[in-house]
Amino acid sequence: MNLIQTNLETMFNPEIIAVIGASDNPAKLGFHVMKSLNNEDFSGKIIPLNPGSPEIWGLKAYPSITDYADRIDLAIVVVPAKLVPVVFTECVEKGVKGIVLITAGFKEIDDPSGAKLHKKIADIVDPARIPVIGPNTFGMINFHANLNASFTPEFSLLKKGKIALVSQSGGISHLLGFLAMRTDARFSKIIGLGNRLNVDFAEIIDYLMNDSDTNMIMLYMEGIDNPMQFIETVKKHGNKKPVIIYKTGSSEKGDQAAKSHTGSMAGKHEIYEGAFGQAGILVMDDAESLLDTAKAFASSEIPEGPGVAVLSGQAGPGLAACDVCEACGLKIVSFGRHTQQNINEYLPPLALRTNPVDMGPAWYNASAQSGIIRAAMNDSNVDAILLLIMFASANANLLRKLSEFLAKFKQSKPIISCILAPPGVWDDDIRRLEEAGVLVNYPTPEQAARALANLVKYRSIQFDIKTDAKG
Amino acid sequence: MNLIQTNLETMFNPEIIAVIGASDNPAKLGFHVMKSLNNEDFSGKIIPLNPGSPEIWGLKAYPSITDYADRIDLAIVVVPAKLVPVVFTECVEKGVKGIVLITAGFKEIDDPSGAKLHKKIADIVDPARIPVIGPNTFGMINFHANLNASFTPEFSLLKKGKIALVSQSGGISHLLGFLAMRTDARFSKIIGLGNRLNVDFAEIIDYLMNDSDTNMIMLYMEGIDNPMQFIETVKKHGNKKPVIIYKTGSSEKGDQAAKSHTGSMAGKHEIYEGAFGQAGILVMDDAESLLDTAKAFASSEIPEGPGVAVLSGQAGPGLAACDVCEACGLKIVSFGRHTQQNINEYLPPLALRTNPVDMGPAWYNASAQSGIIRAAMNDSNVDAILLLIMFASANANLLRKLSEFLAKFKQSKPIISCILAPPGVWDDDIRRLEEAGVLVNYPTPEQAARALANLVKYRSIQFDIKTDAKG
Repeated sequence: MNLIQTNLETMFNPEIIAVIGASDNPAKLGFHVMKSLNNEDFSGKIIPLNPGSPEIWGLKAYPSITDYADRIDLAIVVVPAKLVPVVFTECVEKGVKGIVLITAGFKEIDDPSGAKLHKKIADIVDPARIPVIGPNTFGMINFHANLNASFTPEFSLLKKGKIALVSQSGGISHLLGFLAMRTDARFSKIIGLGNRLNVDFAEIIDYLMNDSDTNMIMLYMEGIDNPMQFIETVKKHGNKKPVIIYKTGSSEKGDQAAKSHTGSMAGKHEIYEGAFGQAGILVMDDAESLLDTAKAFASSEIPEGPGVAVLSGQAGPGLAACDVCEACGLKIVSFGRHTQQNINEYLPPLALRTNPVDMGPAWYNASAQSGIIRAAMNDSNVDAILLLIMFASANANLLRKLSEFLAKFKQSKPIISCILAPPGVWDDDIRRLEEAGVLVNYPTPEQAARALANLVKYRSIQFDIKTDAKG
Repeated sequence: MNLIQTNLETMFNPEIIAVIGASDNPAKLGFHVMKSLNNEDFSGKIIPLNPGSPEIWGLKAYPSITDYADRIDLAIVVVPAKLVPVVFTECVEKGVKGIVLITAGFKEIDDPSGAKLHKKIADIVDPARIPVIGPNTFGMINFHANLNASFTPEFSLLKKGKIALVSQSGGISHLLGFLAMRTDARFSKIIGLGNRLNVDFAEIIDYLMNDSDTNMIMLYMEGIDNPMQFIETVKKHGNKKPVIIYKTGSSEKGDQAAKSHTGSMAGKHEIYEGAFGQAGILVMDDAESLLDTAKAFASSEIPEGPGVAVLSGQAGPGLAACDVCEACGLKIVSFGRHTQQNINEYLPPLALRTNPVDMGPAWYNASAQSGIIRAAMNDSNVDAILLLIMFASANANLLRKLSEFLAKFKQSKPIISCILAPPGVWDDDIRRLEEAGVLVNYPTPEQAARALANLVKYRSIQFDIKTDAKG
C-alpha cells in the first residue's frame, strides 16, 4: 500500500483531530464542523485551533497547530483561502496524516488567482504524500468510526451500513443523505471530493476497494481531468465490489455548467457512458435510482439469473412491476408444475395464480402468503422474488405474521419488495426485515423492479467483461 | 344532465347511507367500512344493515334495507356475491340513488358463473339508472364531503385538495394514497372503479369534469371494454381539466394478467398510447410520475412556455435538473441583460451566475436568494422557475426567511421546487408554502424538473390538438 493510501486509512480513523478555524459563532462553518464532531460515540480527541479564543465548544483551543504538543492525525481546515498556504505548511511540519479542506476559492473561481493558489497548496502537501479531501467540500463522514468530519451535523442521523458514497457535489451528497433518511439506506462512508487537490475518484476507489466496512461504491460525478485513470482504476479491481455511477452533464447547459463548476473537463457524456460500461460500472439516470440501486447492492445477494416471481397482494402493483421487469430485461418465468400445484392450493380458482401471482384472495392470510413465497423460492426457474404488499385496514396484522415466517425461513434467493402502508404503520416491521437481511424494500413496485433489474444487469455486464477478456 | 350523472352527484354527497353487511367483527370488511364512515366530520346518517344484529358500531341496525323507514341515498354492499341479486332488487325498490359494491366474485373469476351473476345484477339496476361503483372495489372517498365509503379508514388521513384519482386497481389506489401521505398531494375524490358494472371511466370522467372540487383528473387503467368511448368522452370535454393516465399492461405478462384480472380487453399498449395523446391525455410511465404530475397540475398554473430558470442553492442539483429539463423539452433560457446584471449583484464573480444559477455563495443569504428569484421572475424569457435548495446546518434559517419573501411576493410564474432537509426539519415550512400556492415541492431535482416538463408538454399537446382541428 502506498503512503497516500496508508494516510487515507489514518485520516478516516483518526485519534486526534485538529479543527483549524474552529468557532463558537454559528455564522461560521468552523462552528458547524465542531458540532458535527461533537458526537459522544466518537472516541478520538478534538483540538480546536483559532488564534482568537482560548476555549471553543468548551475545549481548550490553541492559536495554531504548532502550539499543540501531541501529534495530529487529521486536520480539518475552514480558514479563508488566503491563509491556507501557511496552514498547509504548518500541517506538513507537524506531520499530519490527512487534511479535509472545506475552504472554497481555489480552482473553481473565475479569477486565475484561484487556480494559482490551488497549485501552490498542492505543491506544499504533495511531496509529503498528505491526502487532501477538498478544497470546496462539505467534508467526509466515516460512520463506522462515528466520525462526522463535515459541516453538516445532520449526516450523523444516518445509519451505519455498507454503502460508500463518493460525490463531486455537496448538494447531491446532502440530497442523497436526506433521501436515505427516508428510505433507510445505510452508509459506510460519505466523501465529498470537492475540487480534488490530490484525492480524486481513482485514489478513493483504491481506498474503498480495500475498506472492509464497504461492500458497494456509489459515485456522483460531474467531470474529471483524467477519466481514463478512473476507468483503469475500477477495471484493476475487477468486480471485487460493485461500482455504480450517476453522472450529470448530459445536457448542453449542464455540461457547460459542470465544466465551470468543477474547473475540470466534463463533456462528451456518451463517451463517458461507454467507457463506464466497459469497466463494469453501472450507469444510473437520476439520484433516486442511484440510491435505490445502491441499497439493493448493499443489502441483497445478486440473483443467479433474470428469472423473477412477482407475488403481489393486489393485482395492480403486480402488473406495474411486470411491465418494468420485462422492459428492463428480467423474465417473468413460468413456474414448474409442482410450484404451480402448490400455489393453487392456497388460492381459489381465480385467474392470476400463475406468474404474476395475485395473492389478493389471501390478502390477510399470512400462512397462505408464506406458502406461496416458499413455493416460488423453491422453484428452480425463479432467481428472485418481487414481493408487493399494500396495507389495508383488514390486513393490518399480516406483515407481523409474514415477518415471523420470513425471519425464520432460510431463504436462498433475494426478495426485493414494495411493502407500503400509511407512515408509521408498518415502518418498524419493514426496518426489522431489512436489517435482518430478509428483503430490500422500496416505496413503489416500479422502483423495486428497477432495483432488481439493476442487480441482474450488473451480473450480465460482469459476465460480458469476463467473456471479452477470455475471447 | 342524465339520471346516472344526477345520481352520481347524490351518491358522492349522500345524507343517508346504508351499509349492507355492516359488522362488529374486524375479520369482516363490513367492520372496516363502518370504521371508515365513522368520521366525526361527516354530517350524514349511517344505517348499518345486518339480519344478525340489532346494533352495530353502537348504531341501531336493521335486518334489511326494506326495514328502514326513511330513504337511502347511498348503499354500500359487502355481502357475499350470491346475496347481491336480492340486495340489489331491494335497493331498486327502495329507490337508492347509488351503490358501492365492494363484494368480489363476478366477472373477474375464472368460473363462468361469475360473468352470469355480473350480468344478472346489471340487469336489476340498469333500468333504474342506479350507478354502481364496483363490484370488486375498495370503494370511494369524497374528501370534500368527509365521506370515506371504502374499506380503508386510513384514506381519511389524506388531505382535501383538487386531484381526482380514478383507478381500476385497489392496490394502486392504496399505493398512491400512501405515497401522497408522504408527499402531501391532496385529493378531491378517490374512486376505485373495480369491475365497472355500469360506471366506467367514461361515466366518471363526465362526472368529474363538472365537479367543482376537482381541477385535474388522474387515471390508473389496466384495460377497458370500450376504449373509444373513453377517448371520445375525454375529447368531448376539450381541455377543460387536465387528464393524465398511467396504464399498465405494456409487457406480455402484464397484458395477459390485466386481461384476466379485469375481465376486459387489455392489449395493444401502443394503440392505447397513441389514442390517449390524440385526446390530449398525458401518458405517465409509473406510479411516482403519475402522482408527481397530478400534484403539479393541481397546485400550479401551467407555464406560458418552455423557458426555465434553474436557481439552485448548490451546483450539483442544478446540473441534475438541467439534464432532465433539456431531455424533456424544456429550455434553460439565457437571461436578459438586465436580469443578468441584477443577479451578478448578489453573487461574487464565480462561474455559475448565468442559467443555471449556483446560489452557493449566497447559500445562507435569504435576501440575496430572494433578489435572484425576483430577477428571474421578471425576465421575459423565463416561463417558470426551478428552485433547488438542500438544507445544511449553516442555512437552517434560510427557508423561513425565504418563505416570508415568497409569501409576500406576488409571483407571476410557477415555481417548482426541490427543497429538502432531514425529516421534520423544514417540513412545516414547505407545507405552508405549498398550501399557500407559492410552490410545488418534490423530493429530488429530477422529479421537480419532470413534473414541470409535463406541465409544459400538456400545453403543447393541447396546442397541437387545436391546430389539427383548425387546419
